[in-house]
Amino acid sequence: MKAAFYTGHKNFEIRDIPRQPPKAGEVEVQVAFNGICGTDMHAYHGAMDARIGHNRVLGHEMSGIIATVGEGVDLPVGVAVAIRPLAPCGDCPACDAGLSHICHRLKFLGLDTDGALQEYWTVPAYAIHRLPDGASLEHAALTEPVAVACHDVRRGRVKAGEDVLVIGGGPIGILIAMVARNEGANVILSEVNPHRLSVAQEMGFVTMNPREVDPVATVTAATKGKGADVVFEVSGTQAGTDLMTDVAASRGRIVMVAIHTTRPQVDLFRFFWRELELIGARVYEAEDFDAAIDLLARGVIDAKAMITDIRPLDDVARAFAGLDGDAHAMKTLVRVG
Amino acid sequence: MKAAFYTGHKNFEIRDIPRQPPKAGEVEVQVAFNGICGTDMHAYHGAMDARIGHNRVLGHEMSGIIATVGEGVDLPVGVAVAIRPLAPCGDCPACDAGLSHICHRLKFLGLDTDGALQEYWTVPAYAIHRLPDGASLEHAALTEPVAVACHDVRRGRVKAGEDVLVIGGGPIGILIAMVARNEGANVILSEVNPHRLSVAQEMGFVTMNPREVDPVATVTAATKGKGADVVFEVSGTQAGTDLMTDVAASRGRIVMVAIHTTRPQVDLFRFFWRELELIGARVYEAEDFDAAIDLLARGVIDAKAMITDIRPLDDVARAFAGLDGDAHAMKTLVRVG
Repeated sequence: MKAAFYTGHKNFEIRDIPRQPPKAGEVEVQVAFNGICGTDMHAYHGAMDARIGHNRVLGHEMSGIIATVGEGVDLPVGVAVAIRPLAPCGDCPACDAGLSHICHRLKFLGLDTDGALQEYWTVPAYAIHRLPDGASLEHAALTEPVAVACHDVRRGRVKAGEDVLVIGGGPIGILIAMVARNEGANVILSEVNPHRLSVAQEMGFVTMNPREVDPVATVTAATKGKGADVVFEVSGTQAGTDLMTDVAASRGRIVMVAIHTTRPQVDLFRFFWRELELIGARVYEAEDFDAAIDLLARGVIDAKAMITDIRPLDDVARAFAGLDGDAHAMKTLVRVG
Repeated sequence: MKAAFYTGHKNFEIRDIPRQPPKAGEVEVQVAFNGICGTDMHAYHGAMDARIGHNRVLGHEMSGIIATVGEGVDLPVGVAVAIRPLAPCGDCPACDAGLSHICHRLKFLGLDTDGALQEYWTVPAYAIHRLPDGASLEHAALTEPVAVACHDVRRGRVKAGEDVLVIGGGPIGILIAMVARNEGANVILSEVNPHRLSVAQEMGFVTMNPREVDPVATVTAATKGKGADVVFEVSGTQAGTDLMTDVAASRGRIVMVAIHTTRPQVDLFRFFWRELELIGARVYEAEDFDAAIDLLARGVIDAKAMITDIRPLDDVARAFAGLDGDAHAMKTLVRVG
């Protein structure tokens, strides 16, 4: 079978390797589509070499069909699935507390192990989520990022009628906005990139560009002086960090989605003064995957608008290169199967 | 009657002024004891002059006896009370949301109005909390700071058996430790002042001095690698801000009690990575006052150990001066009545 190996800074090699028969408790999935995400781009730029090396099959946002099952696995061959790419240790304080998705020794399939940019992917059976009959495999490749958004919105306890601000309009920010809107929230999306703003507007979102308007005044006016009930910080910037406290309502919830690589200054006084909450949110739990599959199947997620390019596996290098700095791109899928 | 006026930087004047008969909806309370808190010390140093001026009766941690009631007030003269010193506007987004204690235009009695360092204090009837029969008026002067601690512990959702770290062993930190212990938590108190550490140890608390031991290693070992389920940041320092994220368990709750006057750097990555929560906590709600009165009446709060000095109203200047930089002092009461 064909597999795309990341071999160091922006390089891939397509190799012919043997399929990996599933052991007991494992499943071999024929990969249909695989989406490229921000973490993959990070890896592509060499920023994760210490973790992933120079001989790694990337890919963890995928859809596929069960090809073979290992001993003891009660799943039918031929059904469509998505894979929750987490391998927890089962024996740390987080796992003990039922929080295996933030296991202290969590392995991420497709980063810490080889991933879905190969024709057949062998994974633990517990990672499998079945798709409903008739599900689009193309759209189902969005299950993983939609599950992130479902987890974030669930962590933020978003309720119908609440005012929600999403800071950052990349793929995850847009998906959070879609999931929050589906919960009945009034969503404003803040983004600096004009193209992304127009994409969000076409999706029906109220948007603001904080470089062109006073974002605090805008949110304050839109919420009749109350502020946003829930803020999603997806920008990973100091400006986003300032905005999140400035616009949150009394007892507002701020969900920390972004991966901040430096330690920004935070207005802790405002947390005290307005009794704000900051809520960290990382990946997803099984129920978020189920919710994501359901939202995609019901068309709540505008998958067509999200998927801006699809390329064959042989073109994997161009698929990554095409995303590099392209503000018009949202999600590129690789057609693997 | 006698009243102690703050008249600018570290100065007080005792003046003879007329009592203020209660209007409709008001109550005149004969003040028994009034405690001096950190905010009062701040005012004493002139740091709040822009807000309070140079002609202000301070004092908001008090106990007393109802002397007279205004029209429409259904409270008996002669009963012992404590006063919740908050005057919300009733017409802002926070008040509308039932969060009048963090009203956007909150007035604090004893700062924005004259306070309890006078023989008779006239206040709105809604601020009154009755004390149980036989309550010690001396101990009841601690009701307000104990209510702060009750609010903080409630915001942190502390449960029996949980591991709690309190960063900062001043009066509020110690009271939080007492209230959390009463909930059944295992409390560690972190403090740099050796005298305060010994006071906390005499009260039966496990303590650590982060200047003498590695605080992260200490908490990690004490919690078998899990970390603290709830952290109270009461220090208002960058070191405390670093420690709060370093020692929190997966999904640990961090309660922001301290008033941070600068914007410290915060490890937002850790919030994401361990799905931590930061929870702002300010003053108290009515139920926290009731809880505090109950804890004091039942002797759960070691009021005797907390009250390190009592001085008459004529000595108010010396009461404040005595607290200035005295690491041995916890709580000084002024005997007003």
